[in-house]
Amino acid sequence: MTTIEIVEVSPRDGLQNEKTLLSTEDKLALIGKALDAGVRRMEVASFVNPKKVPQMADAEAVMAGLPARDDVTYVGLALNERGFERAVAADVDEVNFAVMASDTFNRRNQGADAFETARQLTTIADNAQGKIPIGVTIGTAFGCPFEGEVSLDRVLSLVEAIAATLPREIALADTIGVATPRDVAERVGAVRDRYPDVPIRCHFHNTRNTGIANAWAAIEAGATTLDSSLGGVGGCPFAPAATGNIATEDLVYMLDRAGIATGLDLQACIETAQWLEGKLGHAIPGQVMKAGGFPAPA
Amino acid sequence: MTTIEIVEVSPRDGLQNEKTLLSTEDKLALIGKALDAGVRRMEVASFVNPKKVPQMADAEAVMAGLPARDDVTYVGLALNERGFERAVAADVDEVNFAVMASDTFNRRNQGADAFETARQLTTIADNAQGKIPIGVTIGTAFGCPFEGEVSLDRVLSLVEAIAATLPREIALADTIGVATPRDVAERVGAVRDRYPDVPIRCHFHNTRNTGIANAWAAIEAGATTLDSSLGGVGGCPFAPAATGNIATEDLVYMLDRAGIATGLDLQACIETAQWLEGKLGHAIPGQVMKAGGFPAPA
Repeated sequence: MTTIEIVEVSPRDGLQNEKTLLSTEDKLALIGKALDAGVRRMEVASFVNPKKVPQMADAEAVMAGLPARDDVTYVGLALNERGFERAVAADVDEVNFAVMASDTFNRRNQGADAFETARQLTTIADNAQGKIPIGVTIGTAFGCPFEGEVSLDRVLSLVEAIAATLPREIALADTIGVATPRDVAERVGAVRDRYPDVPIRCHFHNTRNTGIANAWAAIEAGATTLDSSLGGVGGCPFAPAATGNIATEDLVYMLDRAGIATGLDLQACIETAQWLEGKLGHAIPGQVMKAGGFPAPA
Repeated sequence: MTTIEIVEVSPRDGLQNEKTLLSTEDKLALIGKALDAGVRRMEVASFVNPKKVPQMADAEAVMAGLPARDDVTYVGLALNERGFERAVAADVDEVNFAVMASDTFNRRNQGADAFETARQLTTIADNAQGKIPIGVTIGTAFGCPFEGEVSLDRVLSLVEAIAATLPREIALADTIGVATPRDVAERVGAVRDRYPDVPIRCHFHNTRNTGIANAWAAIEAGATTLDSSLGGVGGCPFAPAATGNIATEDLVYMLDRAGIATGLDLQACIETAQWLEGKLGHAIPGQVMKAGGFPAPA
């Protein structure tokens, strides 16, 4: 593996669990700094019910304020047909459509059983006729806070339904931060064996300190893309104790030291994370933003 | 790999960088709780200059207060002949003798070049005539805060000198928390290839969020033993920004989920880490002690 793509998710997953609501202007400043740090694919907004997730109520305004960049993919999250339509109307470059592996979580998150949501996705993908790339994220793919263990068979049957819609990629998300490298190797490996032509993205939270270990395991198992969030901000409002996404600068540190290119500049990531911490007004979990890289920059 | 041995280092590396000095009584309480949680090998004291490391000034008193347990190995750290003699006089079951891979760090830490310290070790081991097991830790084996990169060749030449003293095991320590899984796989693999009969222990700090990933990489590369510290407390007074050891409960969480036995009880580890946090009077870095295991205990 010589390159890994990073999807910066701080503007979406990073901010949606924050009590501090950043202004649209601050979100656009964050996005601008992330672009300057080298980010080229970024989840910038979530097209969900603003009553449920007020942090994302300005999704359309964020989209309208983005710099026009042919070399950047701006991603919007959707959980259903309504969200998908809003994302397309707001001119996202790509939709990230999420389905939860666990019915209980999916019902709480999007009011339907998982396979009902997967059927909605089929309709959406049919109607879209390939005009907009759709990536599909399987949430709670390593465990559910309500149901406990989520079996590999369950995940694979959902992957099968999703793969039939010809997504640009499939992502396995550890929504509540319970995965371990063993699980990641097993599950990413199983998806890759069955669908060798579908790129695999992974999304990890560092809730139990396994996030960076899981990222490494995912790379070793063949994932091509990882989500991360500057400063390690993030979580999920419906997932108890789901602390931050893995920190972009921590991930870049590990990959730089392994000679794996990401296109991101570590020092710029550190400075952006420090800036974000100032905007949020409380300590955030990233570690390299505190310790610095190694060796120290000249 | 079906079992991994954990050396609990909170009473030594965990407490030596703490501003809060725990009383001998509290240290013995911590050790007792660790034993109750299943720990069977533990670094309980450091026989170093009490003026330099006042947290360890009661090393002899700690040793004198330990419960007599035939099934437990109490380890004492020594950096030179004087420390070795104190440790033996205090009746440790095993000496952990440390040498730094970097001369600058070794001079600051123990007042001699690395190979001078290795020669002292040779004399010590000759005189000990196998009467007491000696494990040898190579500190700054992945990088030095003063010299920067530490080459693999440098580490291997030190390993060669140490292996000649017939230690019970050789440990690679990431004293300042800069290692990544790629480095760990390379260095542990190289030592194992050259000395397949010498057990390998690893010691990681989570300074840059790579500690648990490094632990997993070490296991995959053939290490049999890992150091960790309840609650992730710890550091090194002479290593700038060297935050805590990897947390025992975070490590046990990952290994439990992978079906790798450690003999430690996760819930008891969590409760001990929480108790330790109370004694220290400030937040400590372990994450599973905050998030809990998975699935939640019945």
